[in-house]
Amino acid sequence: MSPTDSTADSFEKLKTDRFQSVTICSENESSQDVTTFASKLSKSIPIWQAEGKRTIWFHVQRKCSQWLPVLCENEFLFHHVSLDGDVVVMYRWLPQDKPSAVPPYAHTMVGVGGIVLNASGELLVVLQKFGTRELLKLPGGYVEPREDLSDAAIREVEEETGVKTKFLSCFSFRHTHGANFGCSDLYFIVHLEPLSNDTNSDSDEVEDVRWIKIEEFLNDPKVHAVNRLFITTFLQNKEKGISMIKDDGLHPVNRQPYSFYHITDDSGTSEGT
Amino acid sequence: MSPTDSTADSFEKLKTDRFQSVTICSENESSQDVTTFASKLSKSIPIWQAEGKRTIWFHVQRKCSQWLPVLCENEFLFHHVSLDGDVVVMYRWLPQDKPSAVPPYAHTMVGVGGIVLNASGELLVVLQKFGTRELLKLPGGYVEPREDLSDAAIREVEEETGVKTKFLSCFSFRHTHGANFGCSDLYFIVHLEPLSNDTNSDSDEVEDVRWIKIEEFLNDPKVHAVNRLFITTFLQNKEKGISMIKDDGLHPVNRQPYSFYHITDDSGTSEGT
Repeated sequence: MSPTDSTADSFEKLKTDRFQSVTICSENESSQDVTTFASKLSKSIPIWQAEGKRTIWFHVQRKCSQWLPVLCENEFLFHHVSLDGDVVVMYRWLPQDKPSAVPPYAHTMVGVGGIVLNASGELLVVLQKFGTRELLKLPGGYVEPREDLSDAAIREVEEETGVKTKFLSCFSFRHTHGANFGCSDLYFIVHLEPLSNDTNSDSDEVEDVRWIKIEEFLNDPKVHAVNRLFITTFLQNKEKGISMIKDDGLHPVNRQPYSFYHITDDSGTSEGT
Repeated sequence: MSPTDSTADSFEKLKTDRFQSVTICSENESSQDVTTFASKLSKSIPIWQAEGKRTIWFHVQRKCSQWLPVLCENEFLFHHVSLDGDVVVMYRWLPQDKPSAVPPYAHTMVGVGGIVLNASGELLVVLQKFGTRELLKLPGGYVEPREDLSDAAIREVEEETGVKTKFLSCFSFRHTHGANFGCSDLYFIVHLEPLSNDTNSDSDEVEDVRWIKIEEFLNDPKVHAVNRLFITTFLQNKEKGISMIKDDGLHPVNRQPYSFYHITDDSGTSEGT
């Protein structure tokens, strides 16, 4: 991205890129006055159109929220918000002869459930209340921003049960739709090794934490059919020594670390990288 | 959720739930005038606080964007936007003695890459240009809202190559961070069976579509190391007959269909449900 000065009285710190996008962040502009903003915007749009620009992006902080009605009047749409809730991103696709090529924002929540078995073959479970209804579940929860799902499993199991664990492998996942906020949901079942037997929950979401016999869990009416399915497929594959293990690497394009989960029939040892 | 009339001159169509949340949608209110809105909001907040309400949600359409500066002044934060870009959702967590329990919105993009082998053992690949750089890749792309990842793989492979396929199984996935819009990214490698050999790409993103020998792909400098890794782990597991197959089911809570992907050592036949 590089600065441009195509309009002297327009946005000072706009950035352009090779995809013919223009990005303006309210935090970089010296004037945040809404009248000045409206004037700059109405001068800039025809110039961007003449230049063949495609997507115009505005990152607007809450303190510049007066800009938002102006952007809405100028046919901008909402795209996403920042993780801290302070910035909303709006965009407008300029080419009138081509459909929008703007990719949608993330619409998938990612959760993890941990299968934790102790030396006696007992399963770590949590009891949750939903109104008058009780459910016996695998401990787990949602992956946080920038958190690997194996780390999320370890964190959530400790938060809900007090039990520290080590990641071993992944066995299955479920893809569903219509979850919280209308999002889709990917829920991964991972196998964790407990580093102690002591349970100690201070989570508001959990009524009780127990180690129970697997057969007891499979036959308990407080267990959902899908949770039974998670356990039975786990047991089948564990017996055969088949699982998905994790290898770490570095993404070739953005240089970010990644985790690569792949099937192996020699559980616990990596043979990939 | 049920309507409430705790304040006669407040929001008409607000909804409350058992989590002590209040939700107001601009599209349900008879008055969308900003002065009326500001007056109702300033009367309502102390009432909600006195009632012990926790999260206050506003769903604001673009045509009511004048509400947004008022909400920002009243300590509301942005949470997410609707898929069509017309609505932004703001929230305020009211309890001052408890940290916010508002779950973050989705922050993970989901993509799929398809391994498609023809009867001659050739691999279907696409050539993409990034500036002066050429990359030889597996066909694929992002999962759309409410789309199962197996369906996304079939759709993306056909869009990029013209080849219709059938889903067989999943072999691996990569979890990475710092992708588009700062999101995390889950990229699944799935095995698809081609229903014909004829390629026909009308995708702007693809320069060329080819069937090539696997060894040629593995040795081509235009192939990223991670793509080679996807193929080598696939070949190892395919030889052993191990993969993740998909079973369909119905989610016990929200009654939505789900896909359950689990490992089996008898590829192509389901033994789970």
